[in-house]
Amino acid sequence: MSQHPYIFEFPMKVRDYEVDGQGIVNNANYLHYLEHTRHEFCEHVGLTWRRMNEMGLMPVVRKVEIEYINSLHMGESMVSKLWLERKGPRFIFHQDIFTPEGLHIVTATVTVVSVVNGRASRGEILAETFRDYLD
Amino acid sequence: MSQHPYIFEFPMKVRDYEVDGQGIVNNANYLHYLEHTRHEFCEHVGLTWRRMNEMGLMPVVRKVEIEYINSLHMGESMVSKLWLERKGPRFIFHQDIFTPEGLHIVTATVTVVSVVNGRASRGEILAETFRDYLD
Amino acid sequence: MSQHPYIFEFPMKVRDYEVDGQGIVNNANYLHYLEHTRHEFCEHVGLTWRRMNEMGLMPVVRKVEIEYINSLHMGESMVSKLWLERKGPRFIFHQDIFTPEGLHIVTATVTVVSVVNGRASRGEILAETFRDYLD
Amino acid sequence: MSQHPYIFEFPMKVRDYEVDGQGIVNNANYLHYLEHTRHEFCEHVGLTWRRMNEMGLMPVVRKVEIEYINSLHMGESMVSKLWLERKGPRFIFHQDIFTPEGLHIVTATVTVVSVVNGRASRGEILAETFRDYLD
Repeated sequence: MSQHPYIFEFPMKVRDYEVDGQGIVNNANYLHYLEHTRHEFCEHVGLTWRRMNEMGLMPVVRKVEIEYINSLHMGESMVSKLWLERKGPRFIFHQDIFTPEGLHIVTATVTVVSVVNGRASRGEILAETFRDYLD
Repeated sequence: MSQHPYIFEFPMKVRDYEVDGQGIVNNANYLHYLEHTRHEFCEHVGLTWRRMNEMGLMPVVRKVEIEYINSLHMGESMVSKLWLERKGPRFIFHQDIFTPEGLHIVTATVTVVSVVNGRASRGEILAETFRDYLD
Repeated sequence: MSQHPYIFEFPMKVRDYEVDGQGIVNNANYLHYLEHTRHEFCEHVGLTWRRMNEMGLMPVVRKVEIEYINSLHMGESMVSKLWLERKGPRFIFHQDIFTPEGLHIVTATVTVVSVVNGRASRGEILAETFRDYLD
Repeated sequence: MSQHPYIFEFPMKVRDYEVDGQGIVNNANYLHYLEHTRHEFCEHVGLTWRRMNEMGLMPVVRKVEIEYINSLHMGESMVSKLWLERKGPRFIFHQDIFTPEGLHIVTATVTVVSVVNGRASRGEILAETFRDYLD
């Protein structure tokens, strides 16, 4: 769990097909939840898919570290939270998922770089876009 | 189950994440199995993704009818079979999935049309490609 | 599109990972959307997963017929609508998905039966649960 | 890439629905590939799902670290490789995915613990099962 305040929160709900034979959400689906949260955040700051295409900008995930702390079950709700850090060309998304009651489900860091017109970029466009959300 | 002889068979195995909270393969995953079988069939007759791109050809699924007869469980194997029929611009894939022991799992018909360079086609390219497999 | 009035509507949004290499939502994902809509409807009428477990009730999909009319793209929203019909032990969900502007995306009928304590049932429990929504 | 020799290899092929709007395999699907490889390895050493159920044994993923090095595309093949390390109750799967030509796609470490009859275990059953594969 992060000491840093979160800058974006997004509520979601487990869909039944995301649950596996053990009755809990399959591990890979949390990456979907985290990805969807990042994309909702990007839209929130005006960075839509269309806008990225126009700029020739493609975000690329380089690394994911995720710890599974508790499990989500069929029909349960969650709140997905994140804050954001820049390290040169890399943008580190610190992401946590909780139940609405505050039970910690997963904690993750996701490292994203941006490719502009097919070439690795220094991240200036994203830095400008996210400037109000970076320290 | 079809009276017509199958023209292509492809073996697959249930992956654990495809199983839902009831311990059986989730309904939507059978569409994945059927789709993957059609694509393996296309590759088998020389119609790769690359080749379709070069020709500006895009197959589009118009309709799926699927009956769920028995369930597949965690770790089980299957054999996916198909035969093919042309009705003007429409190609009807008759698809069945069985266990290796012959238990019938699903039966489906999938209607596909082809778009060439963004326009609906009469299906000549597919008809030519599939000619040895059509009656 | 149905002449019958819909009895339940549920809004959703395309998640990026549901889009395939053609830039449109993959066919199988519509079955997920339709399933999720039915489950939200069941919760809406008080039939939660927990409640079904307590009653030993398991709904089973027997048949799906789906027509793909238009495509959903990355980031688009949808409204998923349904109405419901009983034919003896079978419950037929008539389901349609539209864009918020009313463009028709898919139309489907999904046939569900209920298994109670491992045996096929005549559907009395579901009929009672859905009584305000059946003609 | 590991200096340690791999103890298990499993070939797979990208399925079209695993590819996202950028034409490359979506990040979350690699977790599916890695999971499926571990399960094939478990079966290979005699640890089937049925056997685990009989013993009341449930493996639980605690942590995943994954680096995305290169991308897999539509229709491509891969070889998924792993070796295994025990650290007390934790089993660390070192997993890599390559193309058949040897291009490195992802490298990951996956930490698994085992729950026996609902309680965290010291891992004796898995250690015994995997003994020929641990240093």
